Amino acid sequence: MTRHDGRAADQLRDVTIVRGWQEHAEGSALISAGSTRVLCAASVTEGVPRWRKGSGLGWVTAEYAMLPRATNTRNDRESVRGRIGGRTHEISRLIGRSLRASIDLKQLGENTIAIDCDVLLADGGTRTAAITGAYVALVDACRWLGRPKAIVHGVSAVSVGVVGGVPMLDLAYVEDSAADTDMNVVCTDDGGFVEVQGTAEGRTFDRATLDRMLDFAVAGCAQLSKIQNDALAGPLPAGPPRPASLGGNR
Amino acid sequence: MTRHDGRAADQLRDVTIVRGWQEHAEGSALISAGSTRVLCAASVTEGVPRWRKGSGLGWVTAEYAMLPRATNTRNDRESVRGRIGGRTHEISRLIGRSLRASIDLKQLGENTIAIDCDVLLADGGTRTAAITGAYVALVDACRWLGRPKAIVHGVSAVSVGVVGGVPMLDLAYVEDSAADTDMNVVCTDDGGFVEVQGTAEGRTFDRATLDRMLDFAVAGCAQLSKIQNDALAGPLPAGPPRPASLGGNR
Amino acid sequence: MTRHDGRAADQLRDVTIVRGWQEHAEGSALISAGSTRVLCAASVTEGVPRWRKGSGLGWVTAEYAMLPRATNTRNDRESVRGRIGGRTHEISRLIGRSLRASIDLKQLGENTIAIDCDVLLADGGTRTAAITGAYVALVDACRWLGRPKAIVHGVSAVSVGVVGGVPMLDLAYVEDSAADTDMNVVCTDDGGFVEVQGTAEGRTFDRATLDRMLDFAVAGCAQLSKIQNDALAGPLPAGPPRPASLGGNR
Amino acid sequence: MTRHDGRAADQLRDVTIVRGWQEHAEGSALISAGSTRVLCAASVTEGVPRWRKGSGLGWVTAEYAMLPRATNTRNDRESVRGRIGGRTHEISRLIGRSLRASIDLKQLGENTIAIDCDVLLADGGTRTAAITGAYVALVDACRWLGRPKAIVHGVSAVSVGVVGGVPMLDLAYVEDSAADTDMNVVCTDDGGFVEVQGTAEGRTFDRATLDRMLDFAVAGCAQLSKIQNDALAGPLPAGPPRPASLGGNR
Amino acid sequence: MTRHDGRAADQLRDVTIVRGWQEHAEGSALISAGSTRVLCAASVTEGVPRWRKGSGLGWVTAEYAMLPRATNTRNDRESVRGRIGGRTHEISRLIGRSLRASIDLKQLGENTIAIDCDVLLADGGTRTAAITGAYVALVDACRWLGRPKAIVHGVSAVSVGVVGGVPMLDLAYVEDSAADTDMNVVCTDDGGFVEVQGTAEGRTFDRATLDRMLDFAVAGCAQLSKIQNDALAGPLPAGPPRPASLGGNR
Amino acid sequence: MTRHDGRAADQLRDVTIVRGWQEHAEGSALISAGSTRVLCAASVTEGVPRWRKGSGLGWVTAEYAMLPRATNTRNDRESVRGRIGGRTHEISRLIGRSLRASIDLKQLGENTIAIDCDVLLADGGTRTAAITGAYVALVDACRWLGRPKAIVHGVSAVSVGVVGGVPMLDLAYVEDSAADTDMNVVCTDDGGFVEVQGTAEGRTFDRATLDRMLDFAVAGCAQLSKIQNDALAGPLPAGPPRPASLGGNR
Repeated sequence: MTRHDGRAADQLRDVTIVRGWQEHAEGSALISAGSTRVLCAASVTEGVPRWRKGSGLGWVTAEYAMLPRATNTRNDRESVRGRIGGRTHEISRLIGRSLRASIDLKQLGENTIAIDCDVLLADGGTRTAAITGAYVALVDACRWLGRPKAIVHGVSAVSVGVVGGVPMLDLAYVEDSAADTDMNVVCTDDGGFVEVQGTAEGRTFDRATLDRMLDFAVAGCAQLSKIQNDALAGPLPAGPPRPASLGGNR
Repeated sequence: MTRHDGRAADQLRDVTIVRGWQEHAEGSALISAGSTRVLCAASVTEGVPRWRKGSGLGWVTAEYAMLPRATNTRNDRESVRGRIGGRTHEISRLIGRSLRASIDLKQLGENTIAIDCDVLLADGGTRTAAITGAYVALVDACRWLGRPKAIVHGVSAVSVGVVGGVPMLDLAYVEDSAADTDMNVVCTDDGGFVEVQGTAEGRTFDRATLDRMLDFAVAGCAQLSKIQNDALAGPLPAGPPRPASLGGNR
Repeated sequence: MTRHDGRAADQLRDVTIVRGWQEHAEGSALISAGSTRVLCAASVTEGVPRWRKGSGLGWVTAEYAMLPRATNTRNDRESVRGRIGGRTHEISRLIGRSLRASIDLKQLGENTIAIDCDVLLADGGTRTAAITGAYVALVDACRWLGRPKAIVHGVSAVSVGVVGGVPMLDLAYVEDSAADTDMNVVCTDDGGFVEVQGTAEGRTFDRATLDRMLDFAVAGCAQLSKIQNDALAGPLPAGPPRPASLGGNR
Repeated sequence: MTRHDGRAADQLRDVTIVRGWQEHAEGSALISAGSTRVLCAASVTEGVPRWRKGSGLGWVTAEYAMLPRATNTRNDRESVRGRIGGRTHEISRLIGRSLRASIDLKQLGENTIAIDCDVLLADGGTRTAAITGAYVALVDACRWLGRPKAIVHGVSAVSVGVVGGVPMLDLAYVEDSAADTDMNVVCTDDGGFVEVQGTAEGRTFDRATLDRMLDFAVAGCAQLSKIQNDALAGPLPAGPPRPASLGGNR
Repeated sequence: MTRHDGRAADQLRDVTIVRGWQEHAEGSALISAGSTRVLCAASVTEGVPRWRKGSGLGWVTAEYAMLPRATNTRNDRESVRGRIGGRTHEISRLIGRSLRASIDLKQLGENTIAIDCDVLLADGGTRTAAITGAYVALVDACRWLGRPKAIVHGVSAVSVGVVGGVPMLDLAYVEDSAADTDMNVVCTDDGGFVEVQGTAEGRTFDRATLDRMLDFAVAGCAQLSKIQNDALAGPLPAGPPRPASLGGNR
Repeated sequence: MTRHDGRAADQLRDVTIVRGWQEHAEGSALISAGSTRVLCAASVTEGVPRWRKGSGLGWVTAEYAMLPRATNTRNDRESVRGRIGGRTHEISRLIGRSLRASIDLKQLGENTIAIDCDVLLADGGTRTAAITGAYVALVDACRWLGRPKAIVHGVSAVSVGVVGGVPMLDLAYVEDSAADTDMNVVCTDDGGFVEVQGTAEGRTFDRATLDRMLDFAVAGCAQLSKIQNDALAGPLPAGPPRPASLGGNR
């Protein structure tokens, strides 16, 4: 069986990560995975939500959205409909939980980092690309804050699924829409699982298939982790000026 | 290590299912799992949403909610806040997907079944109890419709987690709130996976722990499946009159 | 003329009240009146809304809602619609006003009690059953607070109407939907009127009919008051632990 | 005891009704009752809501609102808050029910009349003034439609209450805010009751007081009915052109 | 070319301004321009929004709305629809900006004035009539506050457009709906421009036409300024009592 | 006086337009004007809104939005707040009106084109950049439809203002926030005005200044028109497949 784009079953699409794309943000990254393109921004604000004050701990939240014409047919804006859909809510929560696994909230101090992931172009795997890109933005934001040690794990994510009975890594949209099972896996760079979310769309999946998918996903995340680290090896993009209240220099 | 209520690590709480509790519904069930109590109703309407008309296929949707004082402290009503929260959205979608795995939408014909799961009392595991109870309501609704063959798989669900480093089945609230990992597993009665959703709350989990949790969950679902079947062995509760348009008798 | 269930014109349906049904609540009661079933919870929080601070007075509010399939046909959730309907608003306000008539807000101190009335099964008279049940939950909440003297009046409520020209007490749904006049009456246990709300649905009503309906309602409320007191004669259900800030024991 | 404006206990405030104030409307009336001023418009549209089609019956709805600075202190707009408050909902429903009591929906034919009552200046009794004024607008709208026989009853409304232990008719704001009991009564011009809504604000009320209040209200409504008929005795105001589809002339 | 009402191309409609129409407001004016009628109220509250505290500056905001039947056909209420439309938003912002041009926010002190403009009858030019009337209400509110010097410029507004190729001042609805260009101009009483908003509805407009329209508008605003000053020459209407915290007398 | 970036008073920032950026859209363009970057997409759907059916005319709408971190500080998402702000509404309406001036809706046939303008990076002039870029996307969408003649005018837009008393073209954010007057001008490529919106932020502006600003704007739009035409001279980007129902070839 050949994939529509000639990839092997366990092969990722080409992934590139450009840091500093949104120049006003404390951290930002434009990630491309095949034709999927997600703009990720990490915004730092001093202080934490009221329920967290005085705890000495920071906070990380995330919001995911899609431009109306990221997809084949236009989607109405959620701002116009006046409410956020279930899928958006679900993905925003997933991104937030995943990134909190990368961070030591004590090392972050009482600062809040809001992650925004906006899908500019969608071709499958938007939520996992968002997590992988957002991690890079988050690292830059922590560096900007002068708190690089707040990052304790690398975090990356990838989709895997079963199409025509065959497990495959990193599904494109045409594969995803034909898949029997769709699974998203989030790993730390030391191989731990942060999230495993497998869903049978048509046929249920058995234990052996689940194991195979997990093998693919773990290997895929390891490759993504390397791509993240390569991107992060360069100098910190310019970013906004740092307020005096944060003390020290970067 | 002993659990707070003396259960073994792989032991379910007591589960009871009362059919026909909401007498106006085509199918309904009040499920209790320990101190968790969820009222499930399946409402049949002839016809399907517009995008499905003429397909010959039926449709199943689900909505989950909690009474304000099902929990230790009162939660504001989502109707009063004017919007549905992310958690509610996420669980409603999970329940809908899980129940659609039990049904042959062609056998259902162009009918819609709306599942309502309202948590009256919450002590952990409300989403999995909702799925397990809703399946019973769904079967009764299909029987009421004169289409028992629309049900092609039994579906049940259970939570499993890691508390203090120890994998445990069917977490109560006190366990859940202390868990490092929380996982919800939905299975068909032939042992297939419908959903596997594992989340590291604090520490990440490794492959061995994941395997152990899956073993517990699969065994738990098998027991729940038996409890469902026992409950369904009795006669169909009275329910509402059947419209002539549905033809035949029950 | 015979009623559909054989009752006399001035006869109540069977009423039962179970206290402590929602074990997390400071006060709760499941009231059944015929096939109508309403779950009432009273939630205590220390402190009062901002506009009331420093007044030395407490506050009591109420919210009413119906499960989607409490009725013959499924009602969309108000949380999903994103707004509360007029009927819900109107009934919530009625319940709040009625219960505030039972209480001395000075004796309550600066505490707030939120009453939730959720209709699990609807067969007419849900708003009056909600008031009658909520009073029991409120009394238990005041006892839990160690402030039983905050209750200065018993409060109960009943519906009355004119069906086929005949005044009748405590209408079931089939009677209510055929009624020319529908009236809800809330009384204190010393026979005072808290609310009198009569509405001509079809034909208007004259003074003599109004008088007859009031006679029925006053007698019905007296019986309900006795049922409330009998229920309240038992020991206080377990309920949640009492915070130290409230002082003393129960 | 003297009232703040020298009126007798059973005396109405001065009431004037100006027809045709909103010249685009099929019927409109500006009613003043003391310093309370309500602008009422009746808008005719051919056809009825979907659930009513083919029934041969018309429909009448009503909406009530207050300008932000009709009152002593400014009220936020409900449009800005994004939701309608309970009080608004309750009064809109009351006005709609009351006016439907004046009309034979069969004689109206499959036409819809929407009544808008906007309070320009508020000094107590706005809901009852709205009903009394809206009736005049409704009559003009039926005449404009060429269906004067759709009106089968005059309908008027007045408030009554107990202030300092004394029953009083037509409460102004200073009286209303000091009242122990507040009651709104809607009557037809043949003396039937459409609505009786009495609420104890502080002390409960007894049967004798209720009777006294009803006496006052019935007499007040009779006077208002005369004022309505005097206003309606003049020629139909200009109003908008009548579409050919309605046939005939006015 | 003759206008439908016989006016010259550069002629205003008859304009009248009645002060103190909403007696509870600190300033109010009912402005009529032809058949357009707008009720304007200025509500004073001590203090400013949080973001302005301690600045020594006051604040002026505005909200515009239309009664449902101000127009030929009924418009749904924005409160019922649950959201404010784009047109309403746009006009409210225009009014606010325009009035802030008339005031020295330092002289106003830390007080907030909320302007409400409600269109009771609409026949074109409602937004410019609202600005012209609101200025009068604002002046009275500043006088009521004892801060008449906060007003540093008179502000008035008028519409101008091109109908059938001919520039015309102060368009009525029939003209406006046939116009190729529609322009709203806000001027100070010393001839400065506050806002110039020209929109080509059908054909674009050239520089010469723009100049002609501006000539008309500037002359029209000068006349309106005189009408405002005449209205303001009378004594301050009664208005509400002035709180002691404001000090002094009026 | 020198501008912060060394430009002459009447000089545009560098502008680039990349077509086909959102590959799923029938027309799309990423426009950069200095550091302002707006992604514009034109989505074609067959058919028109209900109120337009059978007219033979097409329809063009527009929506504008900003990514949360396009700006110096993060803006909350309007989807999360549940309502669209006044500024967004106002700009969306401006873009729609402006683009409708470029098109012959009869030549468009009964098709709808929805324009989405999402600001990825904001440095002043986002609404005018959106119009200028959206025109390019619109032309491509009409070509894709096989209806290039629907475009009858080029349309471009630019901001102009008065900073420190000096009129300047194409304000960057630092200039805009210090401007006394801010004006947006939309022109057709034959020099006609579509929109002229000038606002005094601090000091009012006089006729001579207005004239100067218009001169700058007209010249700026002429240059933008040339840049648009250069961009449009290349081949049509790939875009989505064209449905058979549209007939013909591109």
